[in-house]
Amino acid sequence: MPLGFNLLATDRVTSARAGVIQTDHGEIPTPIFMPVGTAGSVKAVSQQDLLSDVDAKIILGNTYHLYLRPGIDILKQAGGLHKFNGWHRPILTDSGGYQVYSLSDRRKITEEGVRFQSHIDGSYHLFTPEYVMDIQRAIGADIIMAFDECPPIPAEKGYVEKSMHLTHRWLLRCFERLRTTEPLYNYHQSLFPIVQGGIHTDLRKQSAQFVANCEAEGNAIGGLSVGEPAEQMYEMTELVCSILPKNKPRYLMGVGTPTNLLEAIALGVDMFDCVMPTRNARNGQIFTWNGIINLRNKKWENDFSPLDELGNSYVDSFYTKAYVRHLFISGEILALQIASVHNLNFYLSLVKTAREKILSGNFLEWKSSVTESLSRKL
Amino acid sequence: MPLGFNLLATDRVTSARAGVIQTDHGEIPTPIFMPVGTAGSVKAVSQQDLLSDVDAKIILGNTYHLYLRPGIDILKQAGGLHKFNGWHRPILTDSGGYQVYSLSDRRKITEEGVRFQSHIDGSYHLFTPEYVMDIQRAIGADIIMAFDECPPIPAEKGYVEKSMHLTHRWLLRCFERLRTTEPLYNYHQSLFPIVQGGIHTDLRKQSAQFVANCEAEGNAIGGLSVGEPAEQMYEMTELVCSILPKNKPRYLMGVGTPTNLLEAIALGVDMFDCVMPTRNARNGQIFTWNGIINLRNKKWENDFSPLDELGNSYVDSFYTKAYVRHLFISGEILALQIASVHNLNFYLSLVKTAREKILSGNFLEWKSSVTESLSRKL
Repeated sequence: MPLGFNLLATDRVTSARAGVIQTDHGEIPTPIFMPVGTAGSVKAVSQQDLLSDVDAKIILGNTYHLYLRPGIDILKQAGGLHKFNGWHRPILTDSGGYQVYSLSDRRKITEEGVRFQSHIDGSYHLFTPEYVMDIQRAIGADIIMAFDECPPIPAEKGYVEKSMHLTHRWLLRCFERLRTTEPLYNYHQSLFPIVQGGIHTDLRKQSAQFVANCEAEGNAIGGLSVGEPAEQMYEMTELVCSILPKNKPRYLMGVGTPTNLLEAIALGVDMFDCVMPTRNARNGQIFTWNGIINLRNKKWENDFSPLDELGNSYVDSFYTKAYVRHLFISGEILALQIASVHNLNFYLSLVKTAREKILSGNFLEWKSSVTESLSRKL
Repeated sequence: MPLGFNLLATDRVTSARAGVIQTDHGEIPTPIFMPVGTAGSVKAVSQQDLLSDVDAKIILGNTYHLYLRPGIDILKQAGGLHKFNGWHRPILTDSGGYQVYSLSDRRKITEEGVRFQSHIDGSYHLFTPEYVMDIQRAIGADIIMAFDECPPIPAEKGYVEKSMHLTHRWLLRCFERLRTTEPLYNYHQSLFPIVQGGIHTDLRKQSAQFVANCEAEGNAIGGLSVGEPAEQMYEMTELVCSILPKNKPRYLMGVGTPTNLLEAIALGVDMFDCVMPTRNARNGQIFTWNGIINLRNKKWENDFSPLDELGNSYVDSFYTKAYVRHLFISGEILALQIASVHNLNFYLSLVKTAREKILSGNFLEWKSSVTESLSRKL
């Protein structure tokens, strides 16, 4: 069935929304955070923990990584990514555009697409909008992203404008390819277009209108959180949200810190993904309601209190700060497992609580009351 | 209460035994394999998985590692290792002797003890038999090992003999230190002496008799599995087992492959530890009833059968060979987690099945029927 979206509540004072997305792999309450499972695995977290302890509702896979390894032949033989990695809730795949720009050694952008070299073995590949749709058909994600160019910030405005138009032309080719092909695994796949336009109000407006006119099942905001000040990101997000249709989910790509999430939720964003909770976990940094903890810090050496007194995860009450600090200092793999489960559970708790507050009508008061402590360094 | 040992059955044809060890942290069925938790963590395996999926009955900690990190002050403040790492079943600690010889940069052995440099920061430390007992009191293991010298194989016989006598004199000092000190955490700690003597029949005999005369609550065979042929290891083990008391558990240190375990069980060994299941897991090698699988091998690329059709672990039926192979090739941490849980579960299943066969009186037939496939490369 086509992707559905029930908007259950919109906040009285902010633009925050609570809803439910329906997919063939189940429902997704919104606002939602999607853990990043780059190569078909959310790093250091087992599917079992992701399901029970993190209670992720949807995860993300990276087309670029999955295309290079294990490759689409293997994924097709497996019957798609859900069967390959054993994750039977919804999956979203990005288009590979961002990785092509950030990871590959060399790349050449033409009207046709992007020619690039693999960061793994230097082999040459060509991603076109059509081919990226075919790859995402093979991966079998429930939500597939349009192939876009993601220019850096800062970039010359003339370049950003040309790039935006290219992204728009590619978008139409993505839709056309999907229209003329079938899903491989007997469930629906939704294409989300991506708004670009850098930090330029007029371009963002133009791009948001172009995307809104596509009447897609959901829409994404790309090209932000790439180094610009948070205020600029919020400004662009607010502008784009004011143009994108209200009755479709809005996805802000690659964002962000706990505070970023709450601010963007207030602007009307429904979906988020970011490597921050897992990447920072592997560096010993955990997020809590009381602030940010660097577990490698000597001050935790003999702190035998639970990892996070306010956390919902099994690891929060079972392990102590002193023990997890010891694991990090000793280079034990278990440290990465514990911190990753904690941070993902925290991000999911954060959006779940935000949703409850939107539904109960006191989102803004709640947001104001927690924002300061969320970014405090403990 | 003192450590107890109930011998439930001895095989009719081999010297294999089935029993139960009683400790203040619970019972241990024997024969048993003890996962190695070097620095207070069984590498890449959570305490939850170790308890439920692996069902380990006792784990091992390394005195050398725990002494250096987190250090005995932290362990004392935590209330011992059980409280520090949240493992509430029995723990055994080695004496640090083996690591001092294998890991530390420089070491000097005297009658007093061993002076060595930390492999972490080059700092100088002195391990004496007395101090190693104090450290193990602070760690709070249920079973603590005597401080011994573990000479390499091959070594000059004169050296092995001198070293053995030193180990014996140190053993008496260990017993004396324990006799005059109390456990720190209100439960009993048992000292197991270690038989040395290299691959020399007369020395092994002499050492076994010395150890037997100590009337300890359990006894260990050390200095084997350090590079000698398996046949020599079995020969020494058989000889020592014939001398050590029948009514106490026998622990063969640092052994070994699944086949090594079954052969040594047949000779009368009750307890084992080895890094092989976890270390090899991290290199992509898993042990199964059908043989040994190198998961990095291309042949598993599109093998979507369960990781181990005959395995009892959750990971065995949930994950496929193709997926775990992909995780190894992609450098995903989850690969290490899955393979480690699998291998430990397999080792525990191996000794559990051996125990059942001893109790049901058909251990030898069973051993003969499985030995060949256990070491086959798949």
